[in-house]
Order: sequence, then structure tokens, then C-alpha cells
Amino acid sequence: MILNFILKYIGFLAAFCTTFAFFPQAVKVWKTKSTKDISLYMFIIFTAGVFAWLIYGITISDIPIILANAVTLVLSLFILIYKIRYK
Amino acid sequence: MILNFILKYIGFLAAFCTTFAFFPQAVKVWKTKSTKDISLYMFIIFTAGVFAWLIYGITISDIPIILANAVTLVLSLFILIYKIRYK
Repeated sequence: MILNFILKYIGFLAAFCTTFAFFPQAVKVWKTKSTKDISLYMFIIFTAGVFAWLIYGITISDIPIILANAVTLVLSLFILIYKIRYK
Repeated sequence: MILNFILKYIGFLAAFCTTFAFFPQAVKVWKTKSTKDISLYMFIIFTAGVFAWLIYGITISDIPIILANAVTLVLSLFILIYKIRYK
């Protein structure tokens, strides 16, 4: 019972951090329109990976994985679009 | 049986992409020593999150989560150190 609570807590904390982390980066590219130092390959591969995590999360019905990756997909795509637009 | 195989395959594909994605970014900062467009907050929050995912993966004994986040932690830390060093 307690282990389950801690496990869920860590899962949600992890999901929150790795999801929310992309928010300051998204704001930064939106404000500066400068993406020179950001790797295009990183965001192509990462966005594809986040999409695969989302499918994985759905198949194993893991709520932290699903929530984290749904939001991360939006933020990652946003950064990728800015990277393509403002090289 | 087949579902399990697909599930594992998607998990490993997801792990491979979201882990390997940080490699071109790490190479880019290592080569250029330029990190102006990269968000410091992103890599602080992300590195903390990856560490939490690692703990989460260990507690639920999920091999793709463990493998992905162990390697991602190294790459993410590498980029974070470069970001701090070469502002």
C-alpha cells in the first residue's frame, strides 16, 4: 500500500519533470526565435520516441507514462517546428 | 505472447529514440561549445526527472524504462555541464 503510493508518487514526479522541462525550452525558442544551438536530429528522434512511449503507455495502461508523453509530444513538436522554421 | 512481444518492441523502440535523441545534441554542444539557445532550466529539470524515472523503473522492474533513463541521464548531464560551462 505505502510502496504503491511512493511508486506512484515517483512516477508522477518523474513525469512532471521530464514533461515540464520542455516548457522553458519552448518559451525560449518562442521568445528568441533563435534555435542555432538546438540539434534538429535530437528533436526529430525525440518526438518520434515520445510518440512511441505514448503507445507503450497506452498498451500497459500506465497513467504517468501516458500523461507525461501526451504533453511532452505537444511541447517537443512545438520546439521542432520552431527549429525547422528558424534555422 | 504476440502482444507481449509488440509491447516490448514498442517500449524498446521508445527507449532507444528518447535516449539516442540526446546523442546528436551532446555531440553538437561538444563540437561547437555553443549553448546560447539551449535552456538551462530545461536541462536542470530534465536531468532531475530522468533520475526519478530511473528510480521508478527500478521499483516496477521495467527494463526499457531502466535502460533508457540510465543512458539518458549520462547524456543529459553531459549537455547540462556544457550549458553551465559555456553560457
